[in-house]
Amino acid sequence: MGEAPRGNAVVGQSGGPTAVINQSLVGVIEAARECGAIERLLGARNGVRGIVEQRFVDLKSLDDELLERVAQTPASALGSTRDKPDEVYCRRIFEVFAANDVRYFFYIGGNDSADTAWIVNEMAAVEGYSLRVFHVPKTIDNDLRVTDHCPGYGSAARFVAAALMGDDRDSASLPGVKIDVIMGRNAGWLAAAGELARQDPSDGPHLIYVPERPLAEEQFVEQVAEVYGRLGRCLVAASEGIEDENGVSYAEKLVSTIERDNHGNPQLSGSGALGDYLAEIVRTKVGRKLGGKKLRVRADTFGYLQRSFAGFASPVDQKEARLAGRKAVEYAASGLAGGSVAFRRVAGNKYRITCFHAELKDMARDTKPLSDEFINAEGNGVNDSFRAYAQPLIGSLPTIGRL
Amino acid sequence: MGEAPRGNAVVGQSGGPTAVINQSLVGVIEAARECGAIERLLGARNGVRGIVEQRFVDLKSLDDELLERVAQTPASALGSTRDKPDEVYCRRIFEVFAANDVRYFFYIGGNDSADTAWIVNEMAAVEGYSLRVFHVPKTIDNDLRVTDHCPGYGSAARFVAAALMGDDRDSASLPGVKIDVIMGRNAGWLAAAGELARQDPSDGPHLIYVPERPLAEEQFVEQVAEVYGRLGRCLVAASEGIEDENGVSYAEKLVSTIERDNHGNPQLSGSGALGDYLAEIVRTKVGRKLGGKKLRVRADTFGYLQRSFAGFASPVDQKEARLAGRKAVEYAASGLAGGSVAFRRVAGNKYRITCFHAELKDMARDTKPLSDEFINAEGNGVNDSFRAYAQPLIGSLPTIGRL
Repeated sequence: MGEAPRGNAVVGQSGGPTAVINQSLVGVIEAARECGAIERLLGARNGVRGIVEQRFVDLKSLDDELLERVAQTPASALGSTRDKPDEVYCRRIFEVFAANDVRYFFYIGGNDSADTAWIVNEMAAVEGYSLRVFHVPKTIDNDLRVTDHCPGYGSAARFVAAALMGDDRDSASLPGVKIDVIMGRNAGWLAAAGELARQDPSDGPHLIYVPERPLAEEQFVEQVAEVYGRLGRCLVAASEGIEDENGVSYAEKLVSTIERDNHGNPQLSGSGALGDYLAEIVRTKVGRKLGGKKLRVRADTFGYLQRSFAGFASPVDQKEARLAGRKAVEYAASGLAGGSVAFRRVAGNKYRITCFHAELKDMARDTKPLSDEFINAEGNGVNDSFRAYAQPLIGSLPTIGRL
Repeated sequence: MGEAPRGNAVVGQSGGPTAVINQSLVGVIEAARECGAIERLLGARNGVRGIVEQRFVDLKSLDDELLERVAQTPASALGSTRDKPDEVYCRRIFEVFAANDVRYFFYIGGNDSADTAWIVNEMAAVEGYSLRVFHVPKTIDNDLRVTDHCPGYGSAARFVAAALMGDDRDSASLPGVKIDVIMGRNAGWLAAAGELARQDPSDGPHLIYVPERPLAEEQFVEQVAEVYGRLGRCLVAASEGIEDENGVSYAEKLVSTIERDNHGNPQLSGSGALGDYLAEIVRTKVGRKLGGKKLRVRADTFGYLQRSFAGFASPVDQKEARLAGRKAVEYAASGLAGGSVAFRRVAGNKYRITCFHAELKDMARDTKPLSDEFINAEGNGVNDSFRAYAQPLIGSLPTIGRL
């Protein structure tokens, strides 16, 4: 703890945008206005990139009406970056901070951004430069450790659930096998949200595949054939990061050289190849298993719509993302030397959270897979505990009418 | 005209579902309840398929609360079909109608369904069987002739506009070239709706490609490079049916044997291949044109979400789809021998429509391309007249907040 130094603050947004990342930005702006220790609040264009290039925008003087519109707008209003600062990059950040009397840095992002925040904060300590770096969690992947869930997840999960609910009705109208590929490089949290589309035992998605459970091709073929045989159709929700029994991802099987971002993460989104590959397996092998039946097989890849679709964010997620931004500033004002904002669920029948201060190192680097307790015994779906966990995060969806 | 015969009625849904096709169904049900000439109202499961297989559900006794839920549920609550009845099929339909004293048939669908309705009605006349067949228009493609617009289009257009609005913000956050492939086999109406995502001249989609204008690959490469050079990014909205300068569709270039449905239509949806193909052109050729620049290129195919996404229908479209269903029954009750329901815009500042009776032959077979008056001179976008035409159909969208 200690006294909160007076000086300027920088806020930036990093990594893949979400539908509510601007709620967190506006939360930081609102709280910074009320914080006596913070003089100017500078928005860095494109995250750390905008810091080293000194592309700043003054954020304290914006009017409330504009702020509210920004909060409701998906994707990063300040722009984002995939840069991962190294030693030289960090030194340049310090020079810019020192030249601008920056004493606070709020970085809205996922585990990679927490890592950057942590490195920058450690370096500041070594350099003897009084800097307080706070991470504001954001990720549709919901894979940050320590926290119950992550701002951005609820809205993406809401999109996925509504998309699968509608697609299941579509597939019930014109039966066949439908495969929907959902974001989630390493964790199945988002694909799991497909469970919230189901209002009746016969509803799809009938199979949910997540990276946490290996999926042999033969197993995939058998399970799709079993559901099709039973219901005359099958809706599959698959994480883009699903792996076979040898730990090789299906996406990697497809492409000789997978594009990787600056953090070494393989580029799985922005292509329909995985969905088409899985559809081809079904078309040939499931059809054969069902006695040479010609199946109607379609695949959709939900792609960037999951994180950026306008006008369909989860109200709970919006509120919590705003709160996370505010809390980071409050922690800074309270004299904490750095950290992140985590959520804890309050016990009781009604959904309620409290925030707590987390260490940067606990948000950084490693991620949190979809919990074992949420995955069914067959490894091809999630259970009622997951439903109870995720339902409050996405808000209400329409009730299906059936004839 | 003439007296409306007393007897039973059948209603069915056909072709690709929409977010509001059940509104039309509920409109038929509500009006049929009030219609003295209609005794029982039978819902045919899976369109004409359910008629010949005598799979019916009684629709007059459903309670209002269920009906309202059905109306709000996307995709065809009775199930759909791609069957196109031939002579033998039609004869079987008559036998079933005669056996059940069916005197009215309401068929909710697109131009293929209007064609089916027309054939069945003509055959009934030849057979001397007193049958009145009414088509209730439905298509996200908006390509039926005679009518100002089609139920189903407004909701799909609303989805496309909100998706492109969010994706444009996403692409502004992490710049590159983004390609979004939008449904529309023969007509560009739905891709054109991307224009409604734009609230500022710099907003994407920066290029909208429709099947009504040939697109040479070289032209595509040059235009993407021009936008990228000017704005540092480029968002492209492309109809799945776009064709090159020789009238060969890009989708057909990709696949040796394209799957075709029973109406001979090529199967373009349910695959990400076209988007990936266009992305690869950009990656190699646009990059080279920009001096060997390594471009961030992504492609998404909106797929079935456009027609089935739950909880995001256009309120105007919902209302009009319901009205179209009601009107078909009213036309039948008035003694008309058959037909379809078309919309006409009432002149004036405020958007308002009236319905009028259309002939089945005028809705059947041929479709209506995106009007020349709506396409810009360069053939890579639409103009303000299109915006004025389409805006009232989709309802309001959020206003973008920018920093």
